[in-house]
Amino acid sequence: MTVPTPTDPAAAPAFGFRRIATDGMARRGEVTTAHGAIRTPAFMPVGTQATVKTMYPEQVRALGADILLGNTYHLMLRPTAERVDRLGGLHRFMNWPHPILTDSGGFQVMSLAKLRKINEQAVTFQSHIDGSRHVLSPERSLEIQGLLGSDIQMQLDECVALPAERAEIERAMRLSLRWAERSKAAFFGKPGHGLFAIVQGGDDEALRVESARALTAIGFHGYAVGGLAVGEPQDVMLRILSATTPELPEDRPRYLMGVGTPDDIVESVGRGIDMFDCVMPTRAGRHGQAFTRRGKVNLRNARHADDPRPIDEESTCPAARDYSRAYLHHLVKAEEALGAMLLTWINLSYYQDLMAGLRAAIEAGRFEDHKAEVKAGWARGDIPPL
Amino acid sequence: MTVPTPTDPAAAPAFGFRRIATDGMARRGEVTTAHGAIRTPAFMPVGTQATVKTMYPEQVRALGADILLGNTYHLMLRPTAERVDRLGGLHRFMNWPHPILTDSGGFQVMSLAKLRKINEQAVTFQSHIDGSRHVLSPERSLEIQGLLGSDIQMQLDECVALPAERAEIERAMRLSLRWAERSKAAFFGKPGHGLFAIVQGGDDEALRVESARALTAIGFHGYAVGGLAVGEPQDVMLRILSATTPELPEDRPRYLMGVGTPDDIVESVGRGIDMFDCVMPTRAGRHGQAFTRRGKVNLRNARHADDPRPIDEESTCPAARDYSRAYLHHLVKAEEALGAMLLTWINLSYYQDLMAGLRAAIEAGRFEDHKAEVKAGWARGDIPPL
Ligand SMILES: [Zn+2]
Ligand SMILES: [Zn+2]
Repeated sequence: MTVPTPTDPAAAPAFGFRRIATDGMARRGEVTTAHGAIRTPAFMPVGTQATVKTMYPEQVRALGADILLGNTYHLMLRPTAERVDRLGGLHRFMNWPHPILTDSGGFQVMSLAKLRKINEQAVTFQSHIDGSRHVLSPERSLEIQGLLGSDIQMQLDECVALPAERAEIERAMRLSLRWAERSKAAFFGKPGHGLFAIVQGGDDEALRVESARALTAIGFHGYAVGGLAVGEPQDVMLRILSATTPELPEDRPRYLMGVGTPDDIVESVGRGIDMFDCVMPTRAGRHGQAFTRRGKVNLRNARHADDPRPIDEESTCPAARDYSRAYLHHLVKAEEALGAMLLTWINLSYYQDLMAGLRAAIEAGRFEDHKAEVKAGWARGDIPPL
Repeated sequence: MTVPTPTDPAAAPAFGFRRIATDGMARRGEVTTAHGAIRTPAFMPVGTQATVKTMYPEQVRALGADILLGNTYHLMLRPTAERVDRLGGLHRFMNWPHPILTDSGGFQVMSLAKLRKINEQAVTFQSHIDGSRHVLSPERSLEIQGLLGSDIQMQLDECVALPAERAEIERAMRLSLRWAERSKAAFFGKPGHGLFAIVQGGDDEALRVESARALTAIGFHGYAVGGLAVGEPQDVMLRILSATTPELPEDRPRYLMGVGTPDDIVESVGRGIDMFDCVMPTRAGRHGQAFTRRGKVNLRNARHADDPRPIDEESTCPAARDYSRAYLHHLVKAEEALGAMLLTWINLSYYQDLMAGLRAAIEAGRFEDHKAEVKAGWARGDIPPL
């Protein structure tokens, strides 16, 4: 059994970030945490309920993932943070002895829980599992994340779906700022564990700039951009990013929450983002879709039923090389678990390879050329039917 | 990609069986096929729809499985035998370059299909998937199995659920005999591929003896005992086995279809059975149950919620060692795919280890002692709660 060594406070590395190379706004860096280093730009597979759906943790690691994301909302309800703490923390619980980031729980309270009520103090809600009543404040969120033991912990914020009224966006941004201050005061600050603030402000550049500056003035280990990829077109998201990242300190990691498609990621890296998370590769895998260097491939499509060729014979992922499209099509149509297992594997592999390619390109000072090549691959599209 | 070499008829080993050791009625042997050898007594994991549910084929192989079972009924409907043939056969389709046994399809026509009608010639039925109409005769079953390319092919038979009237059992047994003769005439007989007949006769020893003798007189590569584990108590099944196996030729493999619990397997090996298949380890894994040397463990039970101990710290299976019962309980309760994946892995590992232990015990001439030790382990039961 791979048991993470209990953190010796004296021995644990300080939480930190260094830039190894830059190319335009794009940054190649490394985050250090109590549970190891994270090569950036990094994609964090989502392990909502303490598991990356349909994947063994060793597999996820072998793909090159340095860090996973865990969802505080799900874990506080089941198995509960107190139970995870008694069992030695989330790393040990899910057999993942590498870095973990947990969100604050706020975003999923707003999207999944029942009877939500938010006020200055906290958000109250009913569990979608058993209807039990819970209160999540900035302080309680960090207490939960501390019990889980995550290496990167997120402030509680309020995220507004777009489009929204400016007044509503501004109100939520200012509440999130006040909650950021309370979060910094409440963060326990074990060695090697960091607290990230979240920039809000919707699609309003002035509000985004104000939020970023105010959070920088408070001071955090890292800065997230929240409230994007919540319904707005990609050009709005990229315009907001272009206005926001220059306002954030250069020597701290930047995390774009819940994003996104491979194209979103490439464009965001070009605007100075270092970290990403998204359910897209795992969810698409469970719905019969593969992400590839030739774009997205829908294995439900009957064109694959008699195709003996693999998804991508040049992939680093055995699942993309060793199984025919015909077999994947069959598994998807027959609703066999192995279909989701193979396609999720293929997708997470593609996302990790995408990040590795971006990191190498930034180091080599050819980010723009690499971006053009990657996009040309997607534009050429999938191999023609037989 | 692991591509099975196309069978060179001149190079393929002849289908065969040799006894390496015997201990009482128990036999330690080896079946040779076009796709490799099968160590017996053998347990065949069930790959109904061309996949052992929730398992990568490499994993199944690594557990020590020499042969898988595929279901003709499912495969003839989807993706169809003709399609599998065009794609290079079932071994290549499912990325399993080792031996495969296919059943005749008859058993599942009777349990799954709609509007079944059986007569002297064939069974007609409607697909449970799309209502399409199909005819399965002894000849068509072998044609399908030939297209799939399975190493061991089964005659079409009629299996009667117990309890049943003697006249009904006798009628089905005699029909199965006539279908056995037609099957032998229809079997294409590629090198390294074998045809097994199926002894019927329900819980009537005289009918079983008659069926076994008549089939032996016709002559097959191997002999299955069908129509057991279909509702009768274990002592009835074992009584029938004790009456049947002495009537079968000693130099041919014997296969007990659809059996069973670990105890069923141990008892049947002691009565001269060489091969088994059963959905129990895979199905139980999807329902939160683990087979262990300490008996069956139900991970849904709340007693495991706070238990940091693994299922079995001495298991050869990483899934049984590297994850806590608390984590498995959580995955099962949260209906996460990884729960079924880990428990199926644990269960198939236990079944394969059980077979390896039986093989070693027979070789060492200590089958009865080994049987007593294994049963004592089950009787002691699971470790006490913390
Ligand atoms: Zn830690
Ligand atoms: Zn073959």
